Amino acid sequence: MQRTLAKDTLDKIGEEVLLRGWVLTVRSHGKIAFFDLRDRSGTLQIAAFDPKQVQNVNSLSQQDAVEVVGKVKKREGKFVNPNTPLGTVEIEASKVSIVAKAKELPFDMGGKDLLLELPTLFDHRSLALKHPKIAKIFKVQAALSSEFRKAAQELDCVEIFVPTIAKGATEGGAEVFKVDYYGSQAFLTQSPQLYKQIMVGVYERVWTIAKAYRAEPSVTTRHLSEATQMDIEIGFIENFEELLDALEFVGTTMIKNASEKNKDILSEFGIEAPLVPTKVPRLTLREAQEIVSKRTGRDLSKELDLNPEDEKEIWLWAKEEHKSDFVTITHFPTKKRAFYTMPDPQDPQYSLSYDLLFKGLEILSGSQRIHKLDELTKRMKEKGVDPGSFGMYLAAFLYGMPPEGGFSFGLERVTMKLLELSNVREASLFPRDMERVDERLSGNQNK
Amino acid sequence: MQRTLAKDTLDKIGEEVLLRGWVLTVRSHGKIAFFDLRDRSGTLQIAAFDPKQVQNVNSLSQQDAVEVVGKVKKREGKFVNPNTPLGTVEIEASKVSIVAKAKELPFDMGGKDLLLELPTLFDHRSLALKHPKIAKIFKVQAALSSEFRKAAQELDCVEIFVPTIAKGATEGGAEVFKVDYYGSQAFLTQSPQLYKQIMVGVYERVWTIAKAYRAEPSVTTRHLSEATQMDIEIGFIENFEELLDALEFVGTTMIKNASEKNKDILSEFGIEAPLVPTKVPRLTLREAQEIVSKRTGRDLSKELDLNPEDEKEIWLWAKEEHKSDFVTITHFPTKKRAFYTMPDPQDPQYSLSYDLLFKGLEILSGSQRIHKLDELTKRMKEKGVDPGSFGMYLAAFLYGMPPEGGFSFGLERVTMKLLELSNVREASLFPRDMERVDERLSGNQNK
Repeated sequence: MQRTLAKDTLDKIGEEVLLRGWVLTVRSHGKIAFFDLRDRSGTLQIAAFDPKQVQNVNSLSQQDAVEVVGKVKKREGKFVNPNTPLGTVEIEASKVSIVAKAKELPFDMGGKDLLLELPTLFDHRSLALKHPKIAKIFKVQAALSSEFRKAAQELDCVEIFVPTIAKGATEGGAEVFKVDYYGSQAFLTQSPQLYKQIMVGVYERVWTIAKAYRAEPSVTTRHLSEATQMDIEIGFIENFEELLDALEFVGTTMIKNASEKNKDILSEFGIEAPLVPTKVPRLTLREAQEIVSKRTGRDLSKELDLNPEDEKEIWLWAKEEHKSDFVTITHFPTKKRAFYTMPDPQDPQYSLSYDLLFKGLEILSGSQRIHKLDELTKRMKEKGVDPGSFGMYLAAFLYGMPPEGGFSFGLERVTMKLLELSNVREASLFPRDMERVDERLSGNQNK
Repeated sequence: MQRTLAKDTLDKIGEEVLLRGWVLTVRSHGKIAFFDLRDRSGTLQIAAFDPKQVQNVNSLSQQDAVEVVGKVKKREGKFVNPNTPLGTVEIEASKVSIVAKAKELPFDMGGKDLLLELPTLFDHRSLALKHPKIAKIFKVQAALSSEFRKAAQELDCVEIFVPTIAKGATEGGAEVFKVDYYGSQAFLTQSPQLYKQIMVGVYERVWTIAKAYRAEPSVTTRHLSEATQMDIEIGFIENFEELLDALEFVGTTMIKNASEKNKDILSEFGIEAPLVPTKVPRLTLREAQEIVSKRTGRDLSKELDLNPEDEKEIWLWAKEEHKSDFVTITHFPTKKRAFYTMPDPQDPQYSLSYDLLFKGLEILSGSQRIHKLDELTKRMKEKGVDPGSFGMYLAAFLYGMPPEGGFSFGLERVTMKLLELSNVREASLFPRDMERVDERLSGNQNK
């Protein structure tokens, strides 16, 4: 018999089917027994009435991989479970067999939520990810990356694959991981930035999903040592606004489409559909600071950036004034941005840079870039970055580099914020930070 | 005036347009002058008749980024260039201005081919990639990755993002890059293998495009130190053949669709459409060796693998006997495969493993996996792999791991073979090997 997926039983009322999946919860009621079976398509109730099958079901444990043969029955009236998409059917089992027996679990996986402290969640990551609600986080993540790709293609960008081992530190600074590269020292790239800029000279418009490595010497709720970046870079731009149009198009359509395709999941997480305005409000950093000052009475005139509290306030403002969960902030101080950021010709203290805030969290960052070689090397030196380590990058500016710019989204951050998770680690399948590489680092060192 | 892309001029005969792009070649004929302009959509001839514009065009150099205003003219009769898609139009320029002037080039970029030694090609990679024929290699690569994703989605696989920094060496062996991870030692993953297996317990079927790092201490035409892998892993399989069906589906549809969508490029590279049979021929390694022995008289009975010469011979056989550029080879010796490979229960010296050969090159490798924990740890120890470094991975086998298997394509290898390039480096935008990280390593060390 061919396998049937749980979701396809809806069309097979009265038929005999073969199902495979994992046991979620077993409910024994003496002469009858039930369990919930999860496969990749959904969760389905299996019922046993025959004494032998009742015995089989009673011997099942959570996470056993099983095979079930049985008849699809329509559930009527009070037997319908309105809380699950497959709640209108159940399978009357004629055969239940174990494909792979699970060991006793370190915690209950049967509840609607998996209420564990984060360290426990990550100590048992291979198991915890099997919890239906946690598995749904990464279904949303997959939808976000898919929608990002579609938006990038609508902008006519070409996909590129760029290296992660490099000789120079992309963004400057000390927060780089060192690699022993055949006895020579190399680094893990902090972003695909320099390579996507080179590729503007080839295809004008490019996208990539790449790794960003940051040796952050602290543990925060917003940072990962290894993160996933969704990047776009666009050349031959008309003006700065063209970049803002592009990032707002990608950011809003990606989040809107991924949300619409996962309405059920968002509602399970208690999230309302994001507010996507026709036109995302745009503020310079200075304008944003003035709005926050007006609303809170705090003096921000000496601040060079928005802190998390300010970002929340701007979100409240955007919701009230523009019915928007998105705000674009532009013109950050030049000295706070990476060397390749173009200073604003009108006021070089500020730069042609931007962040996109979603629900008060920066999910995207970018800028128009310096496209003239002499300005670029001058800025590198001012920033303490050695042009000698960036020969391949700088060569791209010798041969007709047009005005260009770009942006990148942090995939884990977008996922975190869309589902309102409290820590970015929850939005990473196998999070890397200074305390953990799958297992806790101190534990590993004692092995 | 809004910018028009080169390809859209075909619909704008008689209209005035603004174009932007790079200068490919300039041809001066005294009172008239021409140049070829390349933008992201194609290459177009620009003509200047007005003395001022002739002077402007004559002052252009290869790779200058320029802006052109002019009228779209239909080319008739002998003035049509049949060798290029936009050969039926030209632009009569009324204004030619330089957006970014290019420095003198180290070599001519105007020819149909860029005939350089590989080291020179990579020393000037940022420039060389701008050559139209080289740029096309990575358009085909982007098509391959896109078609891979579509095929993976047709198989109902979920996209996952897995880490590249790990505590254990995925595939065993010494060929791993070491990372200084906050003072603790970590490695760059040799493949996403272990993580995709964990994720079978979550989603049954997953795909990822990930990096594979191999510290190969030699330079060959087939290996990169940092490569791109396109991976699929499938759980709850019925049998070994289900895996073969899946890999042949993904391999053939990916290559067939990417080829059909890039017919022009394939023909520019002198490549005929790949021979895709309805049913890919399947041979065990032993059967393949017998075929090669029969055809060549060579004795392969003691060989544990096919060498490149054997693979070519099998390709010839497949073309002659099955009109196929594809062959699936199965049942490689267990001792030649990684620890997670399932030995054939019928004959444990051989394994439930496979390669997919395309035109005589292995472009895919994979196997059914050992899904029982005790067998797995036993095999690890036999292979000298310390189970203690793989706690997170092994935990996945505690909680109902069904029979499963998978495969991975080397993106650069597929690209190389499809376009019949002679070296895999030509199919990597910025190739990494023991001699080079963008610049030559010895050169860098002297800086």
